[in-house]
Amino acid sequence: MNESDPTAAWSLERFQAMMSRCPFNRWLGLKALSFGEDGVEILLPWREELLSSPEAQSMHGGVLASAIDAAASYAIAMRVGHGIPTVDLRVDYHRIAKPGDYTIRGRVIHFGRTFASGEAQVYDAERTLVASGRGLFFSGVAAQRPLPRPHA
Amino acid sequence: MNESDPTAAWSLERFQAMMSRCPFNRWLGLKALSFGEDGVEILLPWREELLSSPEAQSMHGGVLASAIDAAASYAIAMRVGHGIPTVDLRVDYHRIAKPGDYTIRGRVIHFGRTFASGEAQVYDAERTLVASGRGLFFSGVAAQRPLPRPHA
Amino acid sequence: MNESDPTAAWSLERFQAMMSRCPFNRWLGLKALSFGEDGVEILLPWREELLSSPEAQSMHGGVLASAIDAAASYAIAMRVGHGIPTVDLRVDYHRIAKPGDYTIRGRVIHFGRTFASGEAQVYDAERTLVASGRGLFFSGVAAQRPLPRPHA
Amino acid sequence: MNESDPTAAWSLERFQAMMSRCPFNRWLGLKALSFGEDGVEILLPWREELLSSPEAQSMHGGVLASAIDAAASYAIAMRVGHGIPTVDLRVDYHRIAKPGDYTIRGRVIHFGRTFASGEAQVYDAERTLVASGRGLFFSGVAAQRPLPRPHA
Repeated sequence: MNESDPTAAWSLERFQAMMSRCPFNRWLGLKALSFGEDGVEILLPWREELLSSPEAQSMHGGVLASAIDAAASYAIAMRVGHGIPTVDLRVDYHRIAKPGDYTIRGRVIHFGRTFASGEAQVYDAERTLVASGRGLFFSGVAAQRPLPRPHA
Repeated sequence: MNESDPTAAWSLERFQAMMSRCPFNRWLGLKALSFGEDGVEILLPWREELLSSPEAQSMHGGVLASAIDAAASYAIAMRVGHGIPTVDLRVDYHRIAKPGDYTIRGRVIHFGRTFASGEAQVYDAERTLVASGRGLFFSGVAAQRPLPRPHA
Repeated sequence: MNESDPTAAWSLERFQAMMSRCPFNRWLGLKALSFGEDGVEILLPWREELLSSPEAQSMHGGVLASAIDAAASYAIAMRVGHGIPTVDLRVDYHRIAKPGDYTIRGRVIHFGRTFASGEAQVYDAERTLVASGRGLFFSGVAAQRPLPRPHA
Repeated sequence: MNESDPTAAWSLERFQAMMSRCPFNRWLGLKALSFGEDGVEILLPWREELLSSPEAQSMHGGVLASAIDAAASYAIAMRVGHGIPTVDLRVDYHRIAKPGDYTIRGRVIHFGRTFASGEAQVYDAERTLVASGRGLFFSGVAAQRPLPRPHA
């Protein structure tokens, strides 16, 4: 980024409000932690309902995918001005996602006129990387048209 | 598949029980519809909490990713005998996921000794394809060892 | 596809000509085998230069990725009327790609106004699946504008 | 990496030799530029045969995928001691890949006992990001066994 900070118009409250407009995000309990030129940081609090199995006691992969999608898309949304639709997503699960709160860092890879690429990392309470991923998102005029909106 | 049906030992009740051991699957409300040599079919019922935004009235992308993960992994799990961990996942969002119940079809792409590839398609109430994806899953001895278990 | 065949205007010669305009495809030796409503079929002939290692005697993963990209994109190109740019690509390697000629089948997953999703399977000389993948491609107006053209 | 540099046993000559054992890498002309704890850097020289189309004058997407696969896998190979097989790969094409030499940076995302994740970025001669991607690779005992070796 060689211009002035494109996220300057945002506040943590406005970031949280954009996330919380989404009913599924509210259920997940996503909290806006920070944002800036380098991306965003989101908290995903542990909860029994997010488990994959009682024995494994690990966070469900679909929940981590949702958090990666959120962090990557909101890093891009900060430059667009509002939530944007996801086009596709890839998630890699690196380790057991043990009980505890998670921090997800999202970052813009490339911001284009029509599409943008973003990535995100999921860290557990001990700051260990447990999952990461990248996705493609509508960034431009296309997002205003009545096109796919799988993700607000 | 050039052998006898590897899913012969299963019943719809046992398939449902494997899915419902997972707290997040129970919250999603996933229902076992059918299974066989060609794969599995799962129902994802519509619910307001699964929305991406009140305006868009579309199913959240993370919910669809979870359903694709589930259908692909359970198609493979049928041959392993129990739930298996997801290694990675890719999801493509093709259209707006409108209000209504969804049917997800999961299928084995390749079943290997250490890992297996599976895919799944998400259809809306009008049988229109709205999303699809594929993933890599642990299928073998590796799954018994204390390795990553992001998904039961 | 519930309309008339959208590939009716094509011939095998025109399909081959579209592929062979690409210098890298010519070097790979890609041959048009067939096409139709259900997709396209391409031949990738074995050659020592396409090996990953002298010991492994297996086809290089990058070559298989190129063939998957080609087959998926040309299945979509048949409906657009010309070669189209790839937006992103995912490839899964299922087995050792042993010496012998390969057949790649490409198919449209979803054809949209701005982009399209396609997939492809790579089969060895014994008709065993050795690799498969899916990608996103520009399908519409976007393809006419001076946007990314990593793939003709 | 909080231990001593795991790539200490390598030299640029040995890195180049590992790459050049692969006939397809030799044809691509991949050159080892640097390596260290933070990853590897590879040069992909421009050549007419690597074009996607004469009009577009852009590097073929399959060639960029091959270079991303190489850089990510060799960053991991440095810790394993030899070339490793690719399990799967995702590539995103961000911009037109214009004529000129390319530099590819590969990095380890997560190094596990059985699998490892790596990523790579492709920069053009003006140091602009044109493509990037990530993959999963065999890192452990599995690599010694006669398992899939799509990539040396």
